[in-house]
Amino acid sequence: MAASAEIEEGTRLQPKFDADGLVTAIATDAATGELLMVAHMNAEALAKTIASGEAHYFSRSRKKLWRKGEESGHTQRVIEMRVDCDQDAVWIKVEQGGPGACHTGRRSCFYRAVPLGQSGEVTLAFRDADRAFDPAKTYKPDR
Amino acid sequence: MAASAEIEEGTRLQPKFDADGLVTAIATDAATGELLMVAHMNAEALAKTIASGEAHYFSRSRKKLWRKGEESGHTQRVIEMRVDCDQDAVWIKVEQGGPGACHTGRRSCFYRAVPLGQSGEVTLAFRDADRAFDPAKTYKPDR
Repeated sequence: MAASAEIEEGTRLQPKFDADGLVTAIATDAATGELLMVAHMNAEALAKTIASGEAHYFSRSRKKLWRKGEESGHTQRVIEMRVDCDQDAVWIKVEQGGPGACHTGRRSCFYRAVPLGQSGEVTLAFRDADRAFDPAKTYKPDR
Repeated sequence: MAASAEIEEGTRLQPKFDADGLVTAIATDAATGELLMVAHMNAEALAKTIASGEAHYFSRSRKKLWRKGEESGHTQRVIEMRVDCDQDAVWIKVEQGGPGACHTGRRSCFYRAVPLGQSGEVTLAFRDADRAFDPAKTYKPDR
């Protein structure tokens, strides 16, 4: 295992994949800064994203590599990629193709607010939750 | 396990903790939108963050709950919290106390860019990497 200083201060990309072989990937809108989605990349998804400049992820639920937009057409062109201090997360600033990033039809996956200052069960409040597209018309029914 | 529709379209917070009992937590600067850090919360860290409005995380390396800034003084006051579609990630927009969020002394943990359009080994480029504070003077030596 590389020393901490080399990982944090070096110029070599040496991703710290977790036990499942994944790093966290954060996608924000390159134009507005809006947080669009959080997903994961395995080594292959990361390499393909770097090589192609198109966001690729690894789906933990479907256990497969996935080029963002391959089904919906809502691709993500990567404008800039950054890695964090301990190299277990990457941040991609993207041009979001199509109306939205979220499979529920919203622009962003983060369309519900969690109220603060409460204990116990909390009730979420929808925010910026209007649908930008109809997922039923965008994805195959077996998804 | 709750049905997908209830998790995605419901108003009940029911975080999908991973095998280690964690959700991903993304902290951005509430004023500038800058991505500051990516960390994790267990159920206790999430509950304390919601109740207090101060960011709490669970350190995977140190295996303990941690109130951001408890050692450095660089606390994070949460202005808004959101949860994503499948409830395995939360986004907190924070007022970052002190000069920076990263334990290396930078404002953000994402101070290196990954060049695109390349295959094989890539060389990182430092970006916005000036130190905002001196970590040696901020953290105890046994950290």
